[in-house]
Amino acid sequence: MSAAPSTPTYGEVTNQGASTNIAWHQASVDRAARALQRGHRSAILWFTGLSGSGKSTLANAVNSALFERGLSCYVLDGDNVRHGLCKDLGFSDTAREENIRRIGEVSKLFLDAGVVVLTAFVSPFKADRDKARALVEAGDFIEIHCAADLAVCEERDTKGLYAKARTGEIKEFTGISSPYEAPASPELLVHTGSQNLEESVATVVAYLEIHGIITAPAS
Amino acid sequence: MSAAPSTPTYGEVTNQGASTNIAWHQASVDRAARALQRGHRSAILWFTGLSGSGKSTLANAVNSALFERGLSCYVLDGDNVRHGLCKDLGFSDTAREENIRRIGEVSKLFLDAGVVVLTAFVSPFKADRDKARALVEAGDFIEIHCAADLAVCEERDTKGLYAKARTGEIKEFTGISSPYEAPASPELLVHTGSQNLEESVATVVAYLEIHGIITAPAS
Repeated sequence: MSAAPSTPTYGEVTNQGASTNIAWHQASVDRAARALQRGHRSAILWFTGLSGSGKSTLANAVNSALFERGLSCYVLDGDNVRHGLCKDLGFSDTAREENIRRIGEVSKLFLDAGVVVLTAFVSPFKADRDKARALVEAGDFIEIHCAADLAVCEERDTKGLYAKARTGEIKEFTGISSPYEAPASPELLVHTGSQNLEESVATVVAYLEIHGIITAPAS
Repeated sequence: MSAAPSTPTYGEVTNQGASTNIAWHQASVDRAARALQRGHRSAILWFTGLSGSGKSTLANAVNSALFERGLSCYVLDGDNVRHGLCKDLGFSDTAREENIRRIGEVSKLFLDAGVVVLTAFVSPFKADRDKARALVEAGDFIEIHCAADLAVCEERDTKGLYAKARTGEIKEFTGISSPYEAPASPELLVHTGSQNLEESVATVVAYLEIHGIITAPAS
């Protein structure tokens, strides 16, 4: 029977080598411990698609569904990122790249914190999405292409942005004057242009269950 | 008895005005809902102090204590921020300010996600800390001054940084060649230079209980 470890002091902690005391306060709360406690894995659900394709609507609806099951989950979108963390960034190519880089890094922090994080950004460029994917392990990054025809998105024009893009008031608008590079092989392709929201939510939730991120509720 | 709301489609959601359907998927998972589900409020615990004062050690030990109670909590420190979100930033005055700005914004996201977030950065300048404080509501930002004499910190010199600062290998090192602006009225002053780690953890946890962030476990 080994002696109970004494409570470390700051000095002891910082000067000693590998130690159960260090493990006690430094490394014991890792992602695996969080998953065990919360009853689900964390993941990054990266929603990508044209403006108006329904990314944010779907991400929020999935978030609500996960929350109702008691899971730790959070949506990152333009509302809480562009006005805060990325408010110093404009819409030049460099700024867009940096915007997506930061979102990828913040998503990685939430992943590490045990949270299913749902990001809803156009993220039109494959290279930027792939960089975000490369920050984490395989299986942690779930790219969800919200596929809707440009005509449908422009018809919706929920924020009036397409109208401004057509008149040239907004430059380099994705789908109009800047390309959207659709994912070649996303983990999920959701037809948000034609499918009912409830069906889309079910598609995403089923994916998470099938891949062991979350477990189906007991029936 | 009102009719059950129909499942919204993307088009309906985005085109209609105030609606219970929008509320269903957009706003229902707010901070209050998270607090209710998790059984505790969220908060930003902003640890500040000299290098070697024990910020990260204390933050991690408090994090472990909160985790053991089943709370949602997460530590942001140099290890997970400087190598990721802020890896583009150096140590100039401007870069340090931007570093703290981003940490404040990310902390706000975790706060909104219902997580008790513990930040462990020197954050030597009052103006930068006050900007982070100003991002959130009163009571959400708990500044914790980890007070240890410079001599104690330099004696510990856990990362060998003071030695490098003394030889001039590191420029503008807080406490040696750059000022540390101690908080005038922090929410908590913890004597990490002289106090036992266990006592310091108890001090912080008691503060959270007294201020209704968390509840004491049933005895």
